Amino acid sequence: MKALIYHGPGQKALEDHAVPRIEKPTDAIVKITKTTICGTDLHILKGDVPTCAPGRILGHEGVGTIAEVGSGVTGFARGDPVLISCISSCGKCEYCRKGMYSHCATGGWILGNAIDGTQAEYVRIPHADTSLYRIPTGADEEALVMLSDILPTGFECGVLNGKVQPGSTVVIVGAGPIGLAALLTAQFYSPAAIIMVDLDDNRLVTATQFGATGVVNSSDGNAAATILKLTDGRGADTVIEAVGIPATFELCEEIVAPGGVIANVGVHGTSVPLHLERLWDRNITIATRLVDTASTPMLLKTVCSHQIDPTLLITHRFKLDYIIDAYETFSQAAQTRALKRWSMPRQGMP
Amino acid sequence: MKALIYHGPGQKALEDHAVPRIEKPTDAIVKITKTTICGTDLHILKGDVPTCAPGRILGHEGVGTIAEVGSGVTGFARGDPVLISCISSCGKCEYCRKGMYSHCATGGWILGNAIDGTQAEYVRIPHADTSLYRIPTGADEEALVMLSDILPTGFECGVLNGKVQPGSTVVIVGAGPIGLAALLTAQFYSPAAIIMVDLDDNRLVTATQFGATGVVNSSDGNAAATILKLTDGRGADTVIEAVGIPATFELCEEIVAPGGVIANVGVHGTSVPLHLERLWDRNITIATRLVDTASTPMLLKTVCSHQIDPTLLITHRFKLDYIIDAYETFSQAAQTRALKRWSMPRQGMP
Amino acid sequence: MKALIYHGPGQKALEDHAVPRIEKPTDAIVKITKTTICGTDLHILKGDVPTCAPGRILGHEGVGTIAEVGSGVTGFARGDPVLISCISSCGKCEYCRKGMYSHCATGGWILGNAIDGTQAEYVRIPHADTSLYRIPTGADEEALVMLSDILPTGFECGVLNGKVQPGSTVVIVGAGPIGLAALLTAQFYSPAAIIMVDLDDNRLVTATQFGATGVVNSSDGNAAATILKLTDGRGADTVIEAVGIPATFELCEEIVAPGGVIANVGVHGTSVPLHLERLWDRNITIATRLVDTASTPMLLKTVCSHQIDPTLLITHRFKLDYIIDAYETFSQAAQTRALKRWSMPRQGMP
Amino acid sequence: MKALIYHGPGQKALEDHAVPRIEKPTDAIVKITKTTICGTDLHILKGDVPTCAPGRILGHEGVGTIAEVGSGVTGFARGDPVLISCISSCGKCEYCRKGMYSHCATGGWILGNAIDGTQAEYVRIPHADTSLYRIPTGADEEALVMLSDILPTGFECGVLNGKVQPGSTVVIVGAGPIGLAALLTAQFYSPAAIIMVDLDDNRLVTATQFGATGVVNSSDGNAAATILKLTDGRGADTVIEAVGIPATFELCEEIVAPGGVIANVGVHGTSVPLHLERLWDRNITIATRLVDTASTPMLLKTVCSHQIDPTLLITHRFKLDYIIDAYETFSQAAQTRALKRWSMPRQGMP
Repeated sequence: MKALIYHGPGQKALEDHAVPRIEKPTDAIVKITKTTICGTDLHILKGDVPTCAPGRILGHEGVGTIAEVGSGVTGFARGDPVLISCISSCGKCEYCRKGMYSHCATGGWILGNAIDGTQAEYVRIPHADTSLYRIPTGADEEALVMLSDILPTGFECGVLNGKVQPGSTVVIVGAGPIGLAALLTAQFYSPAAIIMVDLDDNRLVTATQFGATGVVNSSDGNAAATILKLTDGRGADTVIEAVGIPATFELCEEIVAPGGVIANVGVHGTSVPLHLERLWDRNITIATRLVDTASTPMLLKTVCSHQIDPTLLITHRFKLDYIIDAYETFSQAAQTRALKRWSMPRQGMP
Repeated sequence: MKALIYHGPGQKALEDHAVPRIEKPTDAIVKITKTTICGTDLHILKGDVPTCAPGRILGHEGVGTIAEVGSGVTGFARGDPVLISCISSCGKCEYCRKGMYSHCATGGWILGNAIDGTQAEYVRIPHADTSLYRIPTGADEEALVMLSDILPTGFECGVLNGKVQPGSTVVIVGAGPIGLAALLTAQFYSPAAIIMVDLDDNRLVTATQFGATGVVNSSDGNAAATILKLTDGRGADTVIEAVGIPATFELCEEIVAPGGVIANVGVHGTSVPLHLERLWDRNITIATRLVDTASTPMLLKTVCSHQIDPTLLITHRFKLDYIIDAYETFSQAAQTRALKRWSMPRQGMP
Repeated sequence: MKALIYHGPGQKALEDHAVPRIEKPTDAIVKITKTTICGTDLHILKGDVPTCAPGRILGHEGVGTIAEVGSGVTGFARGDPVLISCISSCGKCEYCRKGMYSHCATGGWILGNAIDGTQAEYVRIPHADTSLYRIPTGADEEALVMLSDILPTGFECGVLNGKVQPGSTVVIVGAGPIGLAALLTAQFYSPAAIIMVDLDDNRLVTATQFGATGVVNSSDGNAAATILKLTDGRGADTVIEAVGIPATFELCEEIVAPGGVIANVGVHGTSVPLHLERLWDRNITIATRLVDTASTPMLLKTVCSHQIDPTLLITHRFKLDYIIDAYETFSQAAQTRALKRWSMPRQGMP
Repeated sequence: MKALIYHGPGQKALEDHAVPRIEKPTDAIVKITKTTICGTDLHILKGDVPTCAPGRILGHEGVGTIAEVGSGVTGFARGDPVLISCISSCGKCEYCRKGMYSHCATGGWILGNAIDGTQAEYVRIPHADTSLYRIPTGADEEALVMLSDILPTGFECGVLNGKVQPGSTVVIVGAGPIGLAALLTAQFYSPAAIIMVDLDDNRLVTATQFGATGVVNSSDGNAAATILKLTDGRGADTVIEAVGIPATFELCEEIVAPGGVIANVGVHGTSVPLHLERLWDRNITIATRLVDTASTPMLLKTVCSHQIDPTLLITHRFKLDYIIDAYETFSQAAQTRALKRWSMPRQGMP
């Protein structure tokens, strides 16, 4: 089969690769119909993710069809259409029993990282019964690719951790794909205001189209003052950090209201200064989370009932043969205005 | 001034009445701009509310303007536009400190019940600082009358107690004004389905216009079976009882899913059979509540930010001089299709 | 092997029975070290549990040692000491993923009910990885038998559902084994008062020894008045029903404080009158639950750290050969003062 | 009357001062029976609290008797024994209505800071109805002084924010008075382990007497490794920071388990490094809080029902005439082993 292989920092290639096989009774092999590229894939390509070794097939998102199941799989059979979770969950360990699948003792984020991933014609999914979700009849498969990672991440790490409430004020710092996923899912809870902050006016235009009630371009260095003014000096009840650098996190610290929450979604590479000299008596909460995808069944229901339209996040479409072009487009998002895109495998594969 | 006076079961009259005066330093006198009639007013007129003595001015909803404040009132001044809460709250007692204003030691539901109410040109509001809400500039006062009672009741007793969640399935039994208020506010949380149940097809048409995703006319006696079919045999995550008789409560018991909630909003006059022989092992919750109006500040924000449009609940408009006609219209709701209506005091009153 | 067999209403016998065998890859066979008798076993013997067919080995509680595991079991190996949960949980279905194991699509309460149980030398445990718990080194196995059912039932259905809090007032109606389990675990949360209600003074003496701060013998018919007096007229924040008949449930309705909770633990055979005409405006919650045993890992930690001593619940000890005598003793609890008791299999079994 | 006056950094004196008078109708004058010294008083004396101007009477803790009430006070009368909350709360503003009294628009921590305090024979208490608590008959007044500040602070900021649960593992960094208050109140929830960390072995001995299940002297620089070893490499579910410097906060970051909470109680003067490069995917929560004293009614019940004994925190006793000596003793706590101490006003005061 064709697969996109990581060959060390800066190196990737679409190559022929052996089709994966069942290794454990709880495995399933899924024939990929649609996959996509995540910002984390770019991090891997920069060499920032040491758990991902050269030779690895990239990708942790996708939908497809069950090609084969191990003897211990009870919930799926050949031919079933499935959504792949970016998080593998055994369903048995202490963390899985608490719904914290991200820290599964034998799973977590391993797809396209510690084991081969979804940017290929086939993928092996461990713990299949608890890491795949059946696609309801009539659902839009393209939309559901957004449920592998980006929507549960925006929702769980940003919106749930951020305790968004009817009538509340939300600020989302970073209007990239993950910030927009938080923006879409924050609207589940009918906040009174959602203000998006970014350096790029194009992204802020998109944010307005996605439902932001206000936008702030932070390139003038006055974002904190502007937001405090927009919130009558109080700050925001929920602040979602969707960038992952000290400057944006410190902005969040400046604009959180007393009693408010900073929900971190960004992937950080260094420590950030926490201004406890100002925040110790402000009754605030800071929450971090690797997505658990525990909300996937709920999100599936909201998509199928049209509470949310994830296809808004899809801007480009490529066949698998052109996945190198897709990476090129995605890595130049500022110019190409790419959000997420999916790749369809070539027809006629075994 | 003119006031609508209760004269015992079946008896009411619009009469001249002395203008109320400040009795305690924490009182305010409010000049009523708009008021409305509640189903509870009809209960009083039937003689069902023994705490309401003949001679009482009816009414517990309204907006108006501060005419005078006692020496202990710090938050309002003459001329301030205010929303009147149907619940008076001292802010000091054990219940008020827990947010359970309905059980305030010196307040609760007393307006138009134990003390004179709002269907008049002026009303005395005890505990004014904690029982009135300032109307924001530019807000639609007519819409806000719905925040005195009906919207917080539907929201707190039905939606909050019912734990409505994104993607969940909600059934509301009773499509009268209070059921519709629950329907409107349930949408704050983006449930996948909201099914309305009633005997009256006109009301169900209205419910669809208000956002119901499904309707069931229960007059054929098969409502439970129909709803179980609509929910794949599971039943509903949230069932809101908005009628107040044994038959509708027992329907709720039949259709609640394992792990689900029955949120009671109806005012009941007799006991109902609780089928614990079937429900003891179903992990369900039943919740009752007299509205606390603790959610009023939140609801004000959702109205001002257009998350909800309470004016949908307003079908008729009368001047105060015609309030007897308004009662007539409201008490024949099946024919008149009346939901809530407001009365405006005559111009040029003292 | 020896096993206690149910032969229809009123009929049971200790007989030779084939040793159970692995049927599915996720099964384990456990050699029972200690088991016990539950009130539910007496219900089965009365013919009240139609899912339990004649020929069934009774019993759903116990500790033992793994004798054999299926090929799909990853968490246990031959020789491991284990605690058996009364609830079998697949870990995969929608209910299990929500922690509501009692409603597992292929499990729930099936042991000693729909499949053979633990009152034998060996038992087959389905979904072994998610239905057994490893016994920590040095733990008191006799104590842990109380964690199969009775302690999680008292804790989850009574204490957690009842929202017991530091400083709160708790009333437990019924001082049998399950009421005492609620009493023991309620003390995890340091309530100010725990009042036990029963008809039997001996049980109330035991309750005091177990930590009750007050006791009420309800045989004079004045229990509600007495409890209201003890609680300054307010009633109790938490009322736990641990009997299962209308009279005791109605007592709970009379003594719950505004804002309080009735947590139902009793197994009910008929409906009970729910006095909504009095409770509709009292802001109360009623909660039912079949034990999920989701709290077992937490309870194991509290036992191992000596926060609780479950051996208080053990009054009698029998070898398996004398299990008929054990049933006799248990069914005459009023005379024998029996709470729970365990039976040890004969030595020298295969 | 005699009062302890702050005269700028490093300067204080016990002097004659005018008895305070009612300034607003909602004020009360309390004759102090017992007060105490808080670590924050020492901060003021260092000049760290700019809101406290020279000339101020210090002190924000105490019990006493109502000497006089303003015309708007409804809950107290001359002669009532009362507990003074360190937080003044109007009961009316948006924050007070949410239970966040610390951020009251016209209150918060003002006693002995922005207005005169309790280290005197009399004190004026604003918002008396919602800032004082009646002392129940028979309660130990000395014990209750600990409820003005230190116990609610340890409980709300440490234990409640830290989500201490039955069976959980708690680490408290800092075994000073406030760390010990957290230790006492953490036991309300029956955690399996409470490990205290400090540099001073004497304090750790005291911690063991107060109920710590383990102690770690962090002076060897290996505290993190030691605690990870004690927790099987997982870290602690709850980590309470009760010191207020970067080194101790960073220790908390190292030892919090995935899914755990860092509850900050310490008063910080500088920012601390937040290691998001390690914590972004650990599903942790960091919570800050200025005590609201919203838990005071609950804590009163736990003290009166002997769930907790606050007198453990009292090590020294002085008459008001010797309050300078009391400060001396308290500021040299390492040598004097002082925790909290109270001062009694001279007899025969007006």
